[in-house]
Amino acid sequence: MTSRIDRLRAALEEPLLVTNPTNVRYLIGFKSSNAALLVAPERLQLYADFRYAGAAREVEGVDFVETRRALLADLAERLSGRLGFEAAHVTFAGYETLRSGTIEPVPRAGLVEALRAVKDEQELETIRRACAVTDRVYERLSEETFSGRTERDLAWTIEQLFHGEGGDGAAFETVVASGPNAAKPHSRATDRRIGRGETVVVDAGCTIGGYCSDYTRTFATGPLPDELQEGYAVCLEAQEAALARLRGGQTGVDADALARRVVDETRFEGTFGHGLGHGLGLEVHEAPRLSTDSTDTLVPGNVVTVEPGIYLEGRGGIRIEDDVVLTQDGIENLTKLRKDLIEVG
Amino acid sequence: MTSRIDRLRAALEEPLLVTNPTNVRYLIGFKSSNAALLVAPERLQLYADFRYAGAAREVEGVDFVETRRALLADLAERLSGRLGFEAAHVTFAGYETLRSGTIEPVPRAGLVEALRAVKDEQELETIRRACAVTDRVYERLSEETFSGRTERDLAWTIEQLFHGEGGDGAAFETVVASGPNAAKPHSRATDRRIGRGETVVVDAGCTIGGYCSDYTRTFATGPLPDELQEGYAVCLEAQEAALARLRGGQTGVDADALARRVVDETRFEGTFGHGLGHGLGLEVHEAPRLSTDSTDTLVPGNVVTVEPGIYLEGRGGIRIEDDVVLTQDGIENLTKLRKDLIEVG
Repeated sequence: MTSRIDRLRAALEEPLLVTNPTNVRYLIGFKSSNAALLVAPERLQLYADFRYAGAAREVEGVDFVETRRALLADLAERLSGRLGFEAAHVTFAGYETLRSGTIEPVPRAGLVEALRAVKDEQELETIRRACAVTDRVYERLSEETFSGRTERDLAWTIEQLFHGEGGDGAAFETVVASGPNAAKPHSRATDRRIGRGETVVVDAGCTIGGYCSDYTRTFATGPLPDELQEGYAVCLEAQEAALARLRGGQTGVDADALARRVVDETRFEGTFGHGLGHGLGLEVHEAPRLSTDSTDTLVPGNVVTVEPGIYLEGRGGIRIEDDVVLTQDGIENLTKLRKDLIEVG
Repeated sequence: MTSRIDRLRAALEEPLLVTNPTNVRYLIGFKSSNAALLVAPERLQLYADFRYAGAAREVEGVDFVETRRALLADLAERLSGRLGFEAAHVTFAGYETLRSGTIEPVPRAGLVEALRAVKDEQELETIRRACAVTDRVYERLSEETFSGRTERDLAWTIEQLFHGEGGDGAAFETVVASGPNAAKPHSRATDRRIGRGETVVVDAGCTIGGYCSDYTRTFATGPLPDELQEGYAVCLEAQEAALARLRGGQTGVDADALARRVVDETRFEGTFGHGLGHGLGLEVHEAPRLSTDSTDTLVPGNVVTVEPGIYLEGRGGIRIEDDVVLTQDGIENLTKLRKDLIEVG
């Protein structure tokens, strides 16, 4: 804990008011939807309203101050001088409140997020557990009959499997996208009844101790049309190419290209309509991003998804996604599931 | 649909860029995490990136423009002149992006939220359905054995009941707070094993068609200590006093006082440590607020929770919560559940 605060302090030009709840949780292990952590060279002050006072007093190494529920208005009266704030989290209205007194708010972005992007061994262990649960869920899912059931019904089965295998909860709303829905990267689970000879994209994850897993397999309900069969092979080749070559030091753009160029050298050129992946941790989407417009550079300790997809409007889609940690000389794949095309009933 | 846009237009001093996803959904029925709706006197323009393009083109009555994924940066290049933005939703960083071109951003707050606070008949019907599902869930829950099970296990049972009774999903993380945990208004469900002779506060709700239910019952696992028994009676009296006198035209402060003064005239003075209630709709917390520091005034068509509580540190707690709609001359209670103390095993 202390070392996270120390590393943050080393990056600060002025005291920083951390109000993003995930960032507060990361820094001091305190969960609240309405708290602020003031990180200054000699001071570590936690502010929260009465609802969180009991828990806040139990946090070690911080001074707790109870505020009104209107947290920022309260802080505007208490604090003064130059004060960094999280510009990508605080709303414009919140900023106006902060500067209503004698604070000189300085917009800062990504400071805690940069720390969060590099996982320590304990965090990796927690993510490994979330992935192990997810592996077992997908294994059991492979034994289910898909066709004839609605996407929504299958999504509920997945939720039950996560519960049974020991996940704390869903990391995000489970995606079950079948037939033409599988061609939409952002489909969720609908009342569509799954047919035969279709791809079914399942994208699911759980949380364990606050950390997320997030991965995708594409199932086939019986023999697929040639185009989808071939698409699966290309998608898998693209994913394995990326996994084989992913390294710390690469830019997010270069990492994305590892898979994209494989797809774009085939008849499926241009069908991989999203980025290759994203960081994963306390949030299901965090730094770094692997995409054509990423500004990040990968470093060892990053945990990222690797998820190329091929989307064929009206006909179907394929996505294959693993969670990996970047090591000194490559990756450790946290996802142990098979990746050949799984045929289900 | 049109009438919502017309009512919004009537409230505008300049074109408004609506970016809060719930507000976009309310106005045009379009669901996206990255969309903007420009509402101008003669123009209704929807902006979203390629992921939502298919769905966006199907929205009637709007012109759709596909943007880059960096939505606000894209808009900063396309738009100019005075433009209202949702200051309680757009981050400071987003504001900086918006004003990076020739837009003159004007902070506005609560414009769509004010419309959302007054439900139309179709919305009321949807909320009634969400409440009916919740009624049935609580009825079935009353038949369960509580003691000896963990709070978390009971929360999972509730989730299963919601699924079985036809809820689309949970409106929020279910609260099961037993024994000393029941004294914490913001407890969730822990691994604590529920004992005998305790209160168990269950606060749960589901969504139907996007609309939320949210209510609370307090169960007793066998005969309670006198203090908790008496606390239950006072809490119920406070709730019924509020339900009997709640009217459009009251301020949120006055509404809150209807219940608070009942509690504060007893030995439980000062133990009702939160507001009486909040609006309910597409979000589980929305306008208006019923609390000691509310700035709202109630009007017919508001749907609000009425939820006094009594919290006795270390010993237990009680909360009783209904969902009601304000009518011309009082309320319609959407919650049909019994409110005498329910004893469970």
